[in-house]
Amino acid sequence: MHSEESLEGNRGLPSAPSAGQNLDPHLRRYAARAAGMTASEVRALFAVASRPEVVSLAGGMPNLAALPLDSIAAEVAGLIASEGMTALQYGSAHGYPLLREQICDVMALEGVTGHPDDIVVTVGSQMALDLVTRIFCDPGDIVIAEGPSYVGALGTFAAYQANVVHVAMDGEGLVPEALRQALAAAAARGQRVKFLYTIPNFHNPAGITLAVARRAEILEICRQAGVLVIEDNPYGLLGFDGQTYPALRSMDPDNVIYLGSFSKTFASGLRVGWALAPHAVREKLVLAAEATTLCPPMLNQMIVSRFLATHDWKGQIKSFQLMYQERRDALLGALEQHMPAGCTWTKPDGGFFVWMTVPEGIDTKAMQPRAVTARVAYVPGTGFYADGFGSRQMRLSFCYPTPERLREGVRRLAVVLEQELELYRTFGPVAQHRITSGPQTPAPDTA
Amino acid sequence: MHSEESLEGNRGLPSAPSAGQNLDPHLRRYAARAAGMTASEVRALFAVASRPEVVSLAGGMPNLAALPLDSIAAEVAGLIASEGMTALQYGSAHGYPLLREQICDVMALEGVTGHPDDIVVTVGSQMALDLVTRIFCDPGDIVIAEGPSYVGALGTFAAYQANVVHVAMDGEGLVPEALRQALAAAAARGQRVKFLYTIPNFHNPAGITLAVARRAEILEICRQAGVLVIEDNPYGLLGFDGQTYPALRSMDPDNVIYLGSFSKTFASGLRVGWALAPHAVREKLVLAAEATTLCPPMLNQMIVSRFLATHDWKGQIKSFQLMYQERRDALLGALEQHMPAGCTWTKPDGGFFVWMTVPEGIDTKAMQPRAVTARVAYVPGTGFYADGFGSRQMRLSFCYPTPERLREGVRRLAVVLEQELELYRTFGPVAQHRITSGPQTPAPDTA
Repeated sequence: MHSEESLEGNRGLPSAPSAGQNLDPHLRRYAARAAGMTASEVRALFAVASRPEVVSLAGGMPNLAALPLDSIAAEVAGLIASEGMTALQYGSAHGYPLLREQICDVMALEGVTGHPDDIVVTVGSQMALDLVTRIFCDPGDIVIAEGPSYVGALGTFAAYQANVVHVAMDGEGLVPEALRQALAAAAARGQRVKFLYTIPNFHNPAGITLAVARRAEILEICRQAGVLVIEDNPYGLLGFDGQTYPALRSMDPDNVIYLGSFSKTFASGLRVGWALAPHAVREKLVLAAEATTLCPPMLNQMIVSRFLATHDWKGQIKSFQLMYQERRDALLGALEQHMPAGCTWTKPDGGFFVWMTVPEGIDTKAMQPRAVTARVAYVPGTGFYADGFGSRQMRLSFCYPTPERLREGVRRLAVVLEQELELYRTFGPVAQHRITSGPQTPAPDTA
Repeated sequence: MHSEESLEGNRGLPSAPSAGQNLDPHLRRYAARAAGMTASEVRALFAVASRPEVVSLAGGMPNLAALPLDSIAAEVAGLIASEGMTALQYGSAHGYPLLREQICDVMALEGVTGHPDDIVVTVGSQMALDLVTRIFCDPGDIVIAEGPSYVGALGTFAAYQANVVHVAMDGEGLVPEALRQALAAAAARGQRVKFLYTIPNFHNPAGITLAVARRAEILEICRQAGVLVIEDNPYGLLGFDGQTYPALRSMDPDNVIYLGSFSKTFASGLRVGWALAPHAVREKLVLAAEATTLCPPMLNQMIVSRFLATHDWKGQIKSFQLMYQERRDALLGALEQHMPAGCTWTKPDGGFFVWMTVPEGIDTKAMQPRAVTARVAYVPGTGFYADGFGSRQMRLSFCYPTPERLREGVRRLAVVLEQELELYRTFGPVAQHRITSGPQTPAPDTA
């Protein structure tokens, strides 16, 4: 679910109306919810960042180099030749029954014991997140999320006019006491909190994992407050050294909706994800899914099902782990070697992302055009907050470039940071006045 | 877009809450829009209707028998082996650029001259309909649709709490004067009409095509009223004898959003559809799509693109036309031969569906369980109206069964109708009191 596409999902932040909107004769016809649908300021820079000469530490695309394309091609050909009348036909909105059974085996690796009937297969777990928000959130409802949080989730919450309240994280993830205070404050304001949206493992963008000791406490806080928990877990099986953590869903099946995805463990382009939900909620999700896409593509579901049945999918995940671990090591090593004093960053034990905080006086969004000019790209931190925070933060991705490219990207970024710091020492916080806003461009097909 | 899945999309009509809802501990947490998300009463009967011994005149599944599975399998294998790193990776929410160019060639067959940049590729045209409704409809807004209309569209409108006003059709389609009156009545009530949703060609479920002479008039009425036109055209290339009609979009590019699909002309299971919209609207649709699924599956888009590039796709469409025409002839011939006096039906010149009206005293929903007992299934007319009309109508599909099965189905249906008429003559309209409501069951994977 978490890809650089999500960068354009950043509609929780204010953004100047584009020329297209100003000239839009249909402007007065739009629904109120459409007002929040404006293109991210990073969109234009993102297209630039996708140029080959730029080392992109911005993208969240999984690296598919480890996939056995020839054997997958042979499997898919056999599937279409032998079961094409099913694979190319409509299916149910609930999802392919065999795949739903296999998904239970995948979730069992993190301690989840679910029933196939309580799973709904979706077009990527982004669609599961959309459906959950659709059935639960009225305009003005509160969604609690970690600060920072997945930008694509912030975009979905904004599309349903839900208001996001961020709760602080520390090195062990979401801070229980901060969650208590946020819930108490919302209650004091008479606001309806619909759910906690959390990414417990190898957080995007924070690169932090929720300590196991905190999990039961956070579940108890939400249960006491009558607040659902949406557990978004696309990276859970990408723990380095094969480390996995017990899913929140495994600890409180009745109050947790679990969102899963094959985008990071198999192939993002198939767009196969799922939600595991309490039975009555699952029924609502299926009806909402029918109104959205009728059904997820049968071919894609059957490809994933065959892959799980005929390939060493656990070995495949292991090879992904090793590849990403090598890249994580390269990025962290280069940061240690090159970053100027005052920069701090997280040290993820899985997933795709490192979250860096830069010294006072640097605005990461203002600095980004100069970074891209220096042929390195990152995502400014403000995109991961619904409240404008994050101007001293940035997300660095280690999932896609080679270790050598990662080291080169960090070298380039360190030079830009040194120059910014020198400017700040000399002239003060002028960086604050150089925020640029790029024109709208189509999203790149790959970046 | 129009499949029997849409039968479960019937959420515009009142429906008793299911046991699942009554026992749902999350009931108080749902958004207001979720209240309309209840399973259709025909769901259970639909599962029964999918049994092999039942001749289903209910389903709207395309018949894929004419597809060259082996050559498609070979093409897809080649695609994955040579372009797998792209086909299995995230794409853009806008859609695969080459496919968007090819879609322009497809639409040109109906006189549409669109720009690839103004197309957004969606997960079936159902998703395009969902996105259009999402960006335009606030709760309480009015959508005008033909009476009857596509049940899946009624479900989507209900999911966004839009209110549907039906406008009458005659043998030449939507009646312009009835549209004027509906717009005037809405204006008099101070209601906001957001768009006209229309299926101009080989209408689902009515089997009627909008007369060419009426098209400009209807477009002018909507333009004068400041009302957008949503042209849903999944069957337009399935006109018998190769007959096509000029798309509404070709006559008024600035005020028509065109929805297209490869589900009926290639393969429904790939879930590849599109919207062609005025530029500013297209930008909103892309942003809404990003928040919904991030991007449509790249593999599916590239499969369709290869099929269009390497196969005789026009010849493929021709073979679909001939297959459906033979089935249409079989159904109409059998209706002429077997239906009791007082039954009337439309005579489609393309598409999948015949709309039949039965004599007074027969309630098609009440009769349906007995029809299924007699091993024939249809869809009661009420599902195609948001206002409860249609109790004397039914939709008969000729797309899937063989001509022989179609004739047998009509013979069985005629016997049931004769028995109902005899009951009515003897006892009066007792049928009105035998409406049944089936329990919820998962939708069948195929039916």
